[in-house]
Parts: sequence; structure tokens; C-alpha cells
Amino acid sequence: MGSDTTASEARPRTITVAADNLREVVADLFARAGMPEEDAAFMGACLVDADLRGVHSHGTRYTPDYVRSLRGGAWNPRPAIRVVREKGGNVLLDGDRGAGHLIGRRAMGLAIERAGDFGTGTVAVRNSTHCGAMAFFTQLAADAGCIGFATTNAGVRMVPHGGAEPVVALNPLSWAAPTDRGWAVDLDMATSVAAGSKLMVAKERGERIPFGWALDEQGRPTDDPDAGMRGVMLPLGGPKGYGLAVCLDILTGVLSGGRFGAGLGGPGTAQTYQALDIATFIPLDEFRARMGELIDQLKGSRPAPGSPGIFLPGEIEHNLKVERLRAGIPMTAPVIERINELARELGSGGQIVAVA
Amino acid sequence: MGSDTTASEARPRTITVAADNLREVVADLFARAGMPEEDAAFMGACLVDADLRGVHSHGTRYTPDYVRSLRGGAWNPRPAIRVVREKGGNVLLDGDRGAGHLIGRRAMGLAIERAGDFGTGTVAVRNSTHCGAMAFFTQLAADAGCIGFATTNAGVRMVPHGGAEPVVALNPLSWAAPTDRGWAVDLDMATSVAAGSKLMVAKERGERIPFGWALDEQGRPTDDPDAGMRGVMLPLGGPKGYGLAVCLDILTGVLSGGRFGAGLGGPGTAQTYQALDIATFIPLDEFRARMGELIDQLKGSRPAPGSPGIFLPGEIEHNLKVERLRAGIPMTAPVIERINELARELGSGGQIVAVA
Repeated sequence: MGSDTTASEARPRTITVAADNLREVVADLFARAGMPEEDAAFMGACLVDADLRGVHSHGTRYTPDYVRSLRGGAWNPRPAIRVVREKGGNVLLDGDRGAGHLIGRRAMGLAIERAGDFGTGTVAVRNSTHCGAMAFFTQLAADAGCIGFATTNAGVRMVPHGGAEPVVALNPLSWAAPTDRGWAVDLDMATSVAAGSKLMVAKERGERIPFGWALDEQGRPTDDPDAGMRGVMLPLGGPKGYGLAVCLDILTGVLSGGRFGAGLGGPGTAQTYQALDIATFIPLDEFRARMGELIDQLKGSRPAPGSPGIFLPGEIEHNLKVERLRAGIPMTAPVIERINELARELGSGGQIVAVA
Repeated sequence: MGSDTTASEARPRTITVAADNLREVVADLFARAGMPEEDAAFMGACLVDADLRGVHSHGTRYTPDYVRSLRGGAWNPRPAIRVVREKGGNVLLDGDRGAGHLIGRRAMGLAIERAGDFGTGTVAVRNSTHCGAMAFFTQLAADAGCIGFATTNAGVRMVPHGGAEPVVALNPLSWAAPTDRGWAVDLDMATSVAAGSKLMVAKERGERIPFGWALDEQGRPTDDPDAGMRGVMLPLGGPKGYGLAVCLDILTGVLSGGRFGAGLGGPGTAQTYQALDIATFIPLDEFRARMGELIDQLKGSRPAPGSPGIFLPGEIEHNLKVERLRAGIPMTAPVIERINELARELGSGGQIVAVA
């Protein structure tokens, strides 16, 4: 192949794998990286949940990176996550450089508990690491009868509005709320036009990215994920995305005493988790019924010509999960191959295999 | 003038007025509309604050509309704002159809008080009305050493992602935090590309709107504010703005037992105000110093070629306020004329006059 080979010509195949198989192999790798069995099992469940929901950018594709961080000492496989300070519904946690996923589970669990006692629980976390998809944690709150909110700072990849230097992180946020259906409304979005890891997914798949996601190193619009990774990500709606990203950095890194702003270039991130006890405002059943009414209003409204339909945040992800639990998860082959390779390298007996 | 007269040809003049003069005349009008003196004075201060900050879309231009609503009975000039339910940091308020501004002051005041007792105070409000610029209320929280959050549902003007019918409101949000400077970081943004009232301001000024803000009744992009007002507003970043708007409707209308979704077509809106006591996480002085560090990082980063500089959310508004308190507020002449006309009509002795 010549140097003019475009990404799309090199598009790798997709293989379909079973969620259980993927979960077990991934969990075993985290155990081999030094995590207690139960934590390792949770990592498998959490990452596979993202793949099931079609959020591959935050799924098991991260396993080799995470395992490398755990084995290399950047992440702590057995963190002593501890309460630094607390008052009423508010808790400051130190994550002791554990996997952000484990810290997030603990933090949102505490937020839900405090919401039960004080109405609202707000847990800020410092010395954390990458925590995957925020929707996973807000879903925990929704399952507990709360409105969940979660945000993290991560990835200094955006320029400030009017600026030329990437000193702003892509800081995503998530809100989730229970409904009267089998799924929660669950929004999870970066404050950039697209999440940074979507560039890595595009690269893995040999796909181009839409213009408007990123600029290259020379500040030119690009559809090349590699060029975008070397360049900068564009904020959602210009000054609004920039403003949101700054506020979420304040709510996480500045508030927790953790890393923030350009300091995120170093290791360690900060997160904030919040749960609001719905029943302190209106009875939970009434809330669920009102959510159903909102869902019906939106889904019952006239679709745009050619539209595949109207969906609530998190609904498409739920539908995918139901389907994929039944039929398997289509995964980019090299992602699976890298995990299998790591399993052989670490002496795990497990391998991920394609389902028939 | 022929029928092909464009908006820009009819651009009205600007007159500069003194903040005190504007505040007094406007306050007197609210008193004449039946509000107690102290509440009327607050309305004047709150609306003029928006004009001082350059947020004319939410400033005194609303006075004639609000006064009409108060005199016509749609708004209650002497509301019995009451606590419906409370637990720990959470409070549900009924606004009794008072001016949303007064209800917001009460609600954020309660949120700050509860934050002091329980770490986080969350106050949901139903039976409220238009509350002006959310930044005003989150600023109150920042002044009290809290991170403030505020959101309202209002203005069913957006279509859902994939939809063709405007059943989603423009629901703005605001976050504010104290700094070590003379101003707070204070983000205030609609989840549409532009706030709905910016179309009214453009119309008043005889200006076109940028393409990308709104579609006309036939679903075509338009730069005509009138056509945009008859059509729909576009969500910020497509599915992300839609998702944010839905979540904020849940956090306000659904949670409070108030109006939500398409029901917002009728009178009454819902708001949610939240204050986080910063000192429960880290000492307030340390937080302020860290905010200063964040501000310096951003403002000290390399500007884009031709950029007027890098600003934090709320900084430009603060700078304008300082300048306008000194030199007066440039206002669109017909907006001032309408207020003066109303003052004469209601027998007020006050008139707003241009400063030298």
C-alpha cells in the first residue's frame, strides 16, 4: 500500500462477541493486573456495559491501556479510597489513584446514601483516574429513585474561546432520571462537539471523522482522526461548550482540591457525583408517571421527513443493549485481538471468540 | 418605504441612560402594577442588572410585558410563595404565580441557607413565571461562598432531534463560582444556539439574526427574526442541545410537579436552584486562589490571531457593568420609549432621560 492509502481503504472487519465472554476475559485481566476479584469483575461489567450500549469509545477498548496503567504503577490496583471531609450531604473523597470506575461506584453510592438522609448528596473526588462512561454512574442514581448528575475533568484538548492553545479539557457531564419504562433517561455528553475517544474509535475502524470535530496541528479543519488527535477538539457551540467545560472543571478539579485546567496534563483527574432524592419533592410514582408523559409527548410528536424516529437521551443505548444481550456485540476485530493478545501475555486461560 | 425594506434599513437609534434613572422608573412601574415597594425595587435592580451586563434580552425591555401580566392577572403581584415540602437540603416551593425574579431570589436564598446547614441546598419551584437572567441568581450563591446552579424551563420553541414539531423548551442553565477577582465566573446559556429573546432584541434593533439560530415556518434557515419567531429555534449542537433541554425540563418541571414539556404552552414555568457550600470541600480561600490560577492559565494562554482576548464566562458582562455604571447604558430607543409611555399611562411622575 502506498503513502496515499486513505483510512477508509484499510477498514478492518467487525466480529460479534458474547457479552458474558467479553466480561469474563476482561475481568480476569484486571484481576491479573492486581485488582481484588470483586473489583475486577466490576471493571468487566462496567466496560462491557458501555459496549452493550454502543458507547465503544468508553468500553472494553480501553482494557489494554488501563491494564498497562495498573501494572506500570500509574494506577493503584488496590486503592484506599477514603473520605477526606464531609458535612451533611457533601463528601470529599480521595481516590488514591484507583480506577476511576471503582471510585465512581463508591462516590455515587455515597451520593445516593446521603441523598436519602439529606435530600441531596454531592460527592467530589480527587486523585481519581479515567472513569469511563459517566452514564453508568448516573444510571445507578436513577435506579435508586434519584436524579443523578456526574461530571469529570479529562483530556486537555480544547482551546478557550478566542484562544489558540489547548488548555481546556473536554469535561463531559451526565444526567439521568428514572421513568415508567424499562429504561432511564440518561444523557452523557462531552462539552466538545465529539468525545476525544471517538477519534481513537474512528482510527481503530479506519474511518474518517466528520469535519467540525477537530482541527489539525496547523489549526485547519480535518477529517483525519490522527491529525485531529495531534491537533485540538472543537467545543460544542463555540463559547457555550467552552463555558460549560470551564464550569465543569470548577465543579470537579477546583472544588475537590484535585487537578484542574492545564494541570490535567499530569496524571490524575477529578469527578463530582450528585444524587437528588426525587421523593423529597414529589412521590416517586408520580415522577415516573410524569416522565412517561414527557416521553409520550416527545415520541408522539411529528418526526422530520426521513427521520428514524424521536428518541430520548439514553433510549437508543438501552435498545442496543437489549438487542446485544441477545445477539452479541459487534466489535472492531483489532480491539478484540489486542485484548486476546494481552490475555495470552498475562497467562490468562480466557480468549474472546466470535459467536456463530 | 416599500415592502422590500429590510430590517437593517430601519435600524433605530441608541440612547444612553443612567442605571439609577432606569432602575427607579422601572421599579415605580412594578409598584404601580401592585407589587410591594421592596419587591418593586428588587425588580428594577434585577432587570437593570441584566442591561448593565449587556444581557438586554433579559433586561428592562421586558418591563411592559411583565407589567401587563401583573395588571391583567396572569402574574400575581403579591404572591404567597410557600414551602410545600422539605427535607434536609431539599425544598419544594410554590411560587403562586409571582414574578419569577422574586421567586428566584427567595429560592436561591433558601438554597444558600440549606447549603450552610446540609452542604447542598436544592430548591425546586413550581407555579413560577419568567425569571429573567439566571446568572443573577447564581451570582447570589457565588457571593455567599457557594457554587450556584440555576435552571428554568421556558419557551417551547425547539424540535426534538429527529422531530419536526416544536415540543421542547429552550431551557437555559447557569453555573457561577466565586474567584479571587472582583467578579464571579458566571455562565448563563440557553440550550438552543441562541436564547429566544435574542430574536426579539434583533427585531427591536432592526437587525438580522445569524443563519443557524432559527428555521422559518417552512423549516428553512432564516436570518429574519420575525420569521424565526414564527418558526423554531435550533438546539445547541443538535442532539446535545436537545438532550440538555430535556434533562433541564426534568430537573425543573417534572421534578417540581409543575408544568413541563408541551404543557409549557400554558402559563407557569418551573425553576430549580442549587447552592453547594464550597467550604465543606476545601477552604473558601483556597478555592478562590485555585480559581485565580485557572483564570490566569486561560487568560495567559496564546490568543487566536485577531482575537479580542480570552475571557471567562461572565467576565465580559462584569466589565460591561463596571463601564456602564460609570458611563451609562446604551439602550435601543424604542425600548426606552415604550417604558416612558407606560410610565405616563400609569400616572408615574418618572421618565427615563438620555444622559449627556
